[in-house]
Amino acid sequence: MPTCHKQFGEATAILAGDALLTAGLRCFTLFPPDAKFDSAKIRAANAVAEAIGTRGMIGGQVEDIEAERESPAGERSLARLERIHANKTGKLIRVALAVGGILSFASGETLALLDRYGENLGLAFQIKDDLLDVESTREELGKATGKDEAHGKMTFPGILGLEESRQAMAKTVLEARALARTLESGAGPLGELAEFVSARKS
Amino acid sequence: MPTCHKQFGEATAILAGDALLTAGLRCFTLFPPDAKFDSAKIRAANAVAEAIGTRGMIGGQVEDIEAERESPAGERSLARLERIHANKTGKLIRVALAVGGILSFASGETLALLDRYGENLGLAFQIKDDLLDVESTREELGKATGKDEAHGKMTFPGILGLEESRQAMAKTVLEARALARTLESGAGPLGELAEFVSARKS
Repeated sequence: MPTCHKQFGEATAILAGDALLTAGLRCFTLFPPDAKFDSAKIRAANAVAEAIGTRGMIGGQVEDIEAERESPAGERSLARLERIHANKTGKLIRVALAVGGILSFASGETLALLDRYGENLGLAFQIKDDLLDVESTREELGKATGKDEAHGKMTFPGILGLEESRQAMAKTVLEARALARTLESGAGPLGELAEFVSARKS
Repeated sequence: MPTCHKQFGEATAILAGDALLTAGLRCFTLFPPDAKFDSAKIRAANAVAEAIGTRGMIGGQVEDIEAERESPAGERSLARLERIHANKTGKLIRVALAVGGILSFASGETLALLDRYGENLGLAFQIKDDLLDVESTREELGKATGKDEAHGKMTFPGILGLEESRQAMAKTVLEARALARTLESGAGPLGELAEFVSARKS
């Protein structure tokens, strides 16, 4: 299927994004007032808004654009690459876990475990994404490969090399699975999700 | 000053808009939990998100873009023009008043008066906007005039004529001032605001 901006034009696609952003945050306001849940709903909405904002996804996207614009003259370091991904995709993955914890009145300890699990899951997802762009084929991935290098983008294979990137991914997946086992007292969907991120082909 | 997209590029300007939208809705989550206010905060945030979304500002903007795209072949009616403005700017003005009412635990009757006041204020603002584009000069307005006609946009003067548009604006301002007098038991800032909208030169 063509993307929204190809099908309906750029202006409408931007407005669709604005509408979805607003509709997402609005979800927290749709349930009837409830003395027990109201303050948890507000806390969860706050966490989501923070993960989206200038210190989260939007901030990461801005730095990603800047890095591409400066390329290849700009700073190309592992620290910068990790910071961009931590903000651009990592914080949204982490807050998805935090919301579940907050709305089920999880302990501070559980919230911290969920957060570390999400951090590792997000990082593994991103390294895998970069690896697929190098190792996969258009047929397998369902979209063009080799795009990152063509755009001069910073990637994990570009900075660490292929072999070290594979090892870094394996390590974060292992860590995520260990945290999942603690959280789920054995096997469960969080562990399966970490496995899926590592094994996915597209 | 140059606009954001001229100064920083279109991608960054779009992200700045997303960030401000998120930051705006986040405001409702920034105050400490409070059993008395939590459900009112959620109700107010819901009203704001609805006023922004597809049935409010964003929906109005989409129809405005469509109308311009169809121009001059599309439907050009007073009903369509009023619907576009009611969604695109009117609902945000109305919800600004609603939030004040909700957070101060106003009665249903007061909320209804605030809403009617906002509806009239928004309509007056928009008719005045169209009139200024026709009647004002670049020096007085601080920006180019005659833009609406050049873009083939639907406007109140274009559909009703100048004289009838002036009368329509005077009528809505009169109505807004009467509602303000009821709400403020005499003179007050809501009445002054209606007066300002009618008298403004830029």
